[in-house]
Amino acid sequence: MTDIAATHSAASSSSDLIASDRVEGTAVYNRQGEKLGRISHFMVDKRSGQARYAALSFGGFLGMGQEHYPLPWSMLDYDVEKGGYVVELDKAVLENAPRHAADQRPDFDERYGRNVYQYYGLIYPW
Amino acid sequence: MTDIAATHSAASSSSDLIASDRVEGTAVYNRQGEKLGRISHFMVDKRSGQARYAALSFGGFLGMGQEHYPLPWSMLDYDVEKGGYVVELDKAVLENAPRHAADQRPDFDERYGRNVYQYYGLIYPW
Repeated sequence: MTDIAATHSAASSSSDLIASDRVEGTAVYNRQGEKLGRISHFMVDKRSGQARYAALSFGGFLGMGQEHYPLPWSMLDYDVEKGGYVVELDKAVLENAPRHAADQRPDFDERYGRNVYQYYGLIYPW
Repeated sequence: MTDIAATHSAASSSSDLIASDRVEGTAVYNRQGEKLGRISHFMVDKRSGQARYAALSFGGFLGMGQEHYPLPWSMLDYDVEKGGYVVELDKAVLENAPRHAADQRPDFDERYGRNVYQYYGLIYPW
């Protein structure tokens, strides 16, 4: 994947794009190879079309009691061999991470966004 | 919607973001109020998270024979009252618009992108 990405680094190609409905449901692993969960959905800025967060979901039973963890989009790194995203994220870090119940949609305002980015040690770019 | 958007123009708020799985399936109308179809999915740049196109779908029967029309994201304007997107697009313009069969995924490269944007009279921004 690295070689392919490098070849196409100058111009966009089909390998640089992914369909929204393929992101949803995609498995998420950490660098240690542990499966963390799946991407439930992601939040997009209506006007600019910029993805802000992807919601990592896990736990619960048949969707009940499941929790969503908003992850900054830039943390996601697609791994073709794994067929999923790989993120630099220790399981223990998720213990205190920002989250919400699957049936809740929190107010994704600037304060919330800064909090999420800060938690993962990233600069909020907007 | 205009007033609300204006109030929040300086900072992002929950009203500025939309979930990917809410975009999918959303109806699309033109300014004349005609329903053009629905958004099937949208294509996102894997690395930057920038939405490039939304696929407008219509026609066919039970999904068979349906065609997808890639629309530049910037054409989409969400209308709260209609509960759907409103685009500046005469039905006749779709007759010769770039399209592909629903079960095909064309090579969304730069050439394809420029062609789509040019067809709708927009400058390709990447």
